[in-house]
Amino acid sequence: MKTAILHSPGDVRFEDVDAPRILAPTDAVIRLSATCVCGSDLWPYRGIQPVPQPTPMGHEYCGVVEDVGRDVKHVRPGQFVIGSFFASDNTCPHCEAGYQTSCQHREFVTGAQAPKLRVPLADGTLVATPDMPTDDLVPSLLAASDVFGTGWFAAEAANVKPGATVVVVGDGAVGLLGVLSARLMGAERIIAMSGHASRQALARDLGATDIVAERGEAGVERVKELTKGVGADSVLECVGTQQSMAQAIGSARPGGYVSYVGVPHGVALAGEQLFFTHVHLHGGPAPVRRFLPRLIDLVWKGEADPGKVFDLQLPLAEVAEGYRAMDERRAIKALLMP
Amino acid sequence: MKTAILHSPGDVRFEDVDAPRILAPTDAVIRLSATCVCGSDLWPYRGIQPVPQPTPMGHEYCGVVEDVGRDVKHVRPGQFVIGSFFASDNTCPHCEAGYQTSCQHREFVTGAQAPKLRVPLADGTLVATPDMPTDDLVPSLLAASDVFGTGWFAAEAANVKPGATVVVVGDGAVGLLGVLSARLMGAERIIAMSGHASRQALARDLGATDIVAERGEAGVERVKELTKGVGADSVLECVGTQQSMAQAIGSARPGGYVSYVGVPHGVALAGEQLFFTHVHLHGGPAPVRRFLPRLIDLVWKGEADPGKVFDLQLPLAEVAEGYRAMDERRAIKALLMP
Repeated sequence: MKTAILHSPGDVRFEDVDAPRILAPTDAVIRLSATCVCGSDLWPYRGIQPVPQPTPMGHEYCGVVEDVGRDVKHVRPGQFVIGSFFASDNTCPHCEAGYQTSCQHREFVTGAQAPKLRVPLADGTLVATPDMPTDDLVPSLLAASDVFGTGWFAAEAANVKPGATVVVVGDGAVGLLGVLSARLMGAERIIAMSGHASRQALARDLGATDIVAERGEAGVERVKELTKGVGADSVLECVGTQQSMAQAIGSARPGGYVSYVGVPHGVALAGEQLFFTHVHLHGGPAPVRRFLPRLIDLVWKGEADPGKVFDLQLPLAEVAEGYRAMDERRAIKALLMP
Repeated sequence: MKTAILHSPGDVRFEDVDAPRILAPTDAVIRLSATCVCGSDLWPYRGIQPVPQPTPMGHEYCGVVEDVGRDVKHVRPGQFVIGSFFASDNTCPHCEAGYQTSCQHREFVTGAQAPKLRVPLADGTLVATPDMPTDDLVPSLLAASDVFGTGWFAAEAANVKPGATVVVVGDGAVGLLGVLSARLMGAERIIAMSGHASRQALARDLGATDIVAERGEAGVERVKELTKGVGADSVLECVGTQQSMAQAIGSARPGGYVSYVGVPHGVALAGEQLFFTHVHLHGGPAPVRRFLPRLIDLVWKGEADPGKVFDLQLPLAEVAEGYRAMDERRAIKALLMP
C-alpha cells in the first residue's frame, strides 16, 4: 500500500510500504475511512522540529476494524472505531485519572495518512460508534480523533462553565473547535482571536460572539476593554508559541484559567510574572480517549458538527498538496480520502 | 514610637518614627498585640531582593482597633482584628472572585513590626474575632494573618481533597502550615520534604505521615517510590526557587495539582517540559482575606493551632535578633511582642 512519508522539511511523498499487520496480541488493524493533516504535522514539515529519518505521518484516524490480536476482547472486526494519537491501556492509574495520554504503557500512533493502520492496545484505545456511520458523519467522527478532542480538552482544562466569558487564542482547527466546545459547555461570551476573515466567519459559525483581530499586547488590551478591565474567566491557548502563551495569560482575569494544548515550541514562563497573574494553568497532550464517548455521542446525535473545520478535501494520493495548502494557510485542515 | 527599619541587607534597626494616624477616610489604626518576621522578609535581608531605601518592615498583624476614618462602617475601635499583607476593598470583581491580593485597589501593608499600624481599606481588609481573645490564642490568630492563610491557600490551590496523597516542598512556617491545612482538609497521606530533624518533628506533629529528607531528583525518586510510581495528587511548593519548583512538579502525578505560594526568585518554567507533565499549576500571593473567617473560626474553636510555628519569642525591641535567628535557621519563625 501507499502512505505519506516525510523525508525532510517540505518533502512529503506518497510511497509504497508494507501493509500493517498484527504485531502484538493487543493490536488491531483498521481500514481507514478518512484521515487528515494535523497542525502539529507542520512543525516537522516546516523544519521547526527535526526530521532525523523518513517518517510515516498521520495520527488522526477512524475506520473499520479488519483484524485484531488474540488478546483483544472488546474490539471486533467490522466495527467502526475511532482512536487518538496516543494508544493507551485505559486501565493504569494515569488512565483511570483521565490522563490517557500519560498512560504508563502509551505508544504514539503514527502512519495514519494511509489506507490501513495498526493500532496498539486496541481495547484501551479504540471506541466504537453505535453503528456504521453514514458518509456525511465521517469527517466529524474523524475530527473527534484529535482536533475536536483537543479543543474539548482545552475548554475543559480552562474550566469553561455555563455563563463564562471565554477567550480562544489561535484560529487553527483546534482553536476553532475550542470555540465549539466552549459553546457546547454553555459559555455565554466567546471571544475568538483571529485576524483572518474566513476563519473569523467559521469561528462565529461555531459559536464565537466576539472577534479580536489584534495580536500580542494590543490583543490583550482589546480583551480587557471587552471585559470591563477584568479579563476572561477561561482562556484556551491553541498555538504553542511564546507570543500566544503571553497573550493567553494576559487575557485571563486573576484567578482565571488558562489551558494550553499545543506542544509549546520555545516557550519559557517567568515564574515571578506568572505568580502575580494569579492564573490557573493546565494543559498537555489532550487525553482525547477520556472524551471520545461523549464526543462521538454529540456527533452521532447531530449536536456537534466539528467536521466543518475541513475546508479542503483531497484523495489520499494528493497528501503533499494537503500539507502545502495548510502550510500556506490556504486551508484550515485537509481531509484525505484513502 | 519605635519600629523595625531595614537599612540594607543584614541591617535591621529598631528606630523612632512618627506614630501612624488616619490618612484616608477608609483607614484604621490598630495597636498590635503581636507581630512577627516573615520568611519573605529574608529575601531583602539577605540581599536577594534590593533594598533601595530604609524600609519599615513587617506585614503580619493582629490587634485592637484604636481609631477609624470617617468612611469606615464595620470596623470599630475596641475590636480585635486580623488583616493580611495586601489591603483590599473586598468589593471589586477580583475580590468577589476570591482573589483579594489582586484587588483593583490593593495596597501593600508594611511597617507592622511596630507597636501600631495604619491599615488602609479597613472595612475590606480587617476581620474581627468573636470577642477579645485570651493571650494564648494570639500567636495562632497572628499566624492566620499570613503564614496559616498562605499554607491554607497552598493546600486549596493544590486541590487537596479528603483521601488525597499530598507532598509539601519546603519546611518553613508556610510549608509546615501547608501540612496542617492539608490535614484539616482531610488528606490521607502527607509527605513533608524536610532535611531538618526539628522541623521534621513539627511536621509530624502538624499532620505529616511521611518525611522525605532527600532533595532535588533524589527527593522526587523517593516520592515516586512512596506512591508506587504514580506521584502525588497534590503538591504544595512553599519555597520559590527553581529547584523547589522542579521538585514539586516532578513529584506530582499526571493530572495532579501543584500550587506555588512563595514569590518565585529566578524561576523559569520550560513550556514543553511542563506540557508533558500534565500538571495543574496555580499560585500567587495568597488571598488570605478569603480564608480569614474560616481560619479565625478554626483557631477560636481550638481545631487548629498554627501558632506552633513560632519557636522563638522576643520583645519587639529585639527584632534584629529575630531576623538573625531565622536567617541562620536557628528559628522557624520569630514572634515579636510590642
